[in-house]
Amino acid sequence: MAISVEEALRLIREDAVPLGNEAVSLEHLAGRVLAEDLSADRPFPPYDRIMMDGVALNADAFEAGQRIFPVQEFQPAGMSPVTLQSPGHCIEIATGASLPLGCNAVVMYEQLNIKDGAAHILCDDIRHGQHIHPQASDRKQGDIIAPRGFICGAAEVGAAATVGKSTVTVVRQPRIVFVTTGDELVDVDITPAPHQIRKSNAYALGALFGFPTSVSHLPDNRGKLSQFFETASTDFDVIVLCGAVSKGKRDFVPEVLSELGATQVFHGVHQRPGKPMWFGRLGDTRIFGLPGNPVSTFLCGLRYLHAWIGKAQGIPPFVQTARLTEAVTFEPALTYFLQVKLQDGKAIPVPGRGSGDHANLVDADGFLELPADRNHFTIGERFPVHPYRRQSL
Amino acid sequence: MAISVEEALRLIREDAVPLGNEAVSLEHLAGRVLAEDLSADRPFPPYDRIMMDGVALNADAFEAGQRIFPVQEFQPAGMSPVTLQSPGHCIEIATGASLPLGCNAVVMYEQLNIKDGAAHILCDDIRHGQHIHPQASDRKQGDIIAPRGFICGAAEVGAAATVGKSTVTVVRQPRIVFVTTGDELVDVDITPAPHQIRKSNAYALGALFGFPTSVSHLPDNRGKLSQFFETASTDFDVIVLCGAVSKGKRDFVPEVLSELGATQVFHGVHQRPGKPMWFGRLGDTRIFGLPGNPVSTFLCGLRYLHAWIGKAQGIPPFVQTARLTEAVTFEPALTYFLQVKLQDGKAIPVPGRGSGDHANLVDADGFLELPADRNHFTIGERFPVHPYRRQSL
Repeated sequence: MAISVEEALRLIREDAVPLGNEAVSLEHLAGRVLAEDLSADRPFPPYDRIMMDGVALNADAFEAGQRIFPVQEFQPAGMSPVTLQSPGHCIEIATGASLPLGCNAVVMYEQLNIKDGAAHILCDDIRHGQHIHPQASDRKQGDIIAPRGFICGAAEVGAAATVGKSTVTVVRQPRIVFVTTGDELVDVDITPAPHQIRKSNAYALGALFGFPTSVSHLPDNRGKLSQFFETASTDFDVIVLCGAVSKGKRDFVPEVLSELGATQVFHGVHQRPGKPMWFGRLGDTRIFGLPGNPVSTFLCGLRYLHAWIGKAQGIPPFVQTARLTEAVTFEPALTYFLQVKLQDGKAIPVPGRGSGDHANLVDADGFLELPADRNHFTIGERFPVHPYRRQSL
Repeated sequence: MAISVEEALRLIREDAVPLGNEAVSLEHLAGRVLAEDLSADRPFPPYDRIMMDGVALNADAFEAGQRIFPVQEFQPAGMSPVTLQSPGHCIEIATGASLPLGCNAVVMYEQLNIKDGAAHILCDDIRHGQHIHPQASDRKQGDIIAPRGFICGAAEVGAAATVGKSTVTVVRQPRIVFVTTGDELVDVDITPAPHQIRKSNAYALGALFGFPTSVSHLPDNRGKLSQFFETASTDFDVIVLCGAVSKGKRDFVPEVLSELGATQVFHGVHQRPGKPMWFGRLGDTRIFGLPGNPVSTFLCGLRYLHAWIGKAQGIPPFVQTARLTEAVTFEPALTYFLQVKLQDGKAIPVPGRGSGDHANLVDADGFLELPADRNHFTIGERFPVHPYRRQSL
């Protein structure tokens, strides 16, 4: 009944649909996907913009031999452009100002002296248009700066401000709840009994996605599970369960979902870790049933939930690759997600410590995806890699 | 008076000092730098943990020939381990449970049938310890999981939860205010006059750093600047000014700072863009005076403010590199920050549109840093690169 990783991803991507749009302010735009084109409301730059502090003049007069230009006046940035009275004058200007009418070049202060109210030009030639950023040379009015579907970063935030968008329409992010299950789990601030452990999966998954999510917990109890699904499916787009999806006597999740009329898309993926993964729908709510082992939960979140969210936001899949630094053998006919350190595009296998805790994840930077149809993987071979760590600010 | 990029970075790193610590909750831990060691408060795993659903038994009995094991009872996860009454019995167990006393192996449901209250084992051999994750095999009590100075990601959030840290001590982030200057600037939601443009630099820089920052604006007015510095230097660790640091008649920043007794560390860097950059201190407050052109402001923020924040957080410099896809010539004796698209470790120069707007930044992914002591840069050469865009979620 289990399916391949490729098939699981295909089904997940097929399932993921856009969640509609919402408006966000500039402060919250970074990381969001545009649901509208970001267009130039006016030319870029909107006027012939001065790029250097100095004087603006008419280069024809300079070419005709004039070297001393009386300063007509100072035109700061933010003032309507003044008009040059005669080609023999010049106008002191500031970076960012609009080119005075009648001028066609700028000479920077480094290339002139101002004495007795006149600019003495020291350079040997002046190019027409020098130090002027011509109107519309970057973008014409109406040009698309960033099209819908673009992932906004800091540059797009700046561009949005420039074109007067104090709020921007973006693709809505899914409302997700991460739910830990298991009677062996206690709260983080509790000292566990010897046979208990603390809840950690939901926090790790929440941090993996970096946008507001909810965290909840359920005991291994059929009634509580059922009740939770009915409420949560109206509040959330996605319910992510950590645990209770395997073959254990109290792994009630698949059974309870079936009773509630949920559609099972798949149960079981030919992979390690994370083999018992369940995926389906309850009404419009998507349900990811992830195996409860911390490394399994984490891998399934990184590989599958990530793919679903990406597709629902309209982001094309982006898969990095890395080269193995040593040979690896893995006998089972499963896709093997190998924990690796990442360095300059190289994937260094992390000695396995078993199907471990979050401490194992701390030791690595990502998972290298070794395909199911082979058992031996040689030094220098390149495979897809799924990193979960940034190496700088 | 201008200095090299290398010298500017050296002075900025030398200046950056730790800002003290603060406690954050698990939900806000990702992206922060640990100011305490994250240690195992108990062994990892804390008990011999069952890794498969099935039965726990004594492998010696199996080796002696026994294949049918009466089920003594079911021990779910979260229960104190029960004791095997005799080596001939077995105990049904769930993943995550503590190994029952007297058992030394687990057989998964896939390799047995349960009939009339007894487990009929179907496999040919059972390894001592199979499907048991031994106590302390990942970490011993007191082991450091992640040392102080570590940048926390989702894995560390999970690890912190596991060891019972609902709040964690991390390095404090700087309180930063980004200030636009220039009388040509109007608010984002205003329709500018032909000679005006909207404020955008402060939003772009704020988005670049991704943690709470403030945004402010100042007119080109000596008194207002002076007044602002006196107030802001008590509220902020870092003041970042966009504009008013060059040689223009209203570039009052260096002068006003000097009057207030500020220490100038440097003014001017041999680079394009961003040559007029100013850096110094007013009391304990650091002041970055960045040239106001959007591309200059952005580059200086990405290269210098980023370096200061990184050092103040104790993060070692991390510089990626990329290979040029075409030859580039740049004659001035300046470090040239070339705008590039990034693809698979390759840097594709973006045709310059002049010293542009944020629209130019949208067209590229980062800046390639071409050193000042050369003018010609050949295809395939590798240089440091400063990306400002993520390519996936």
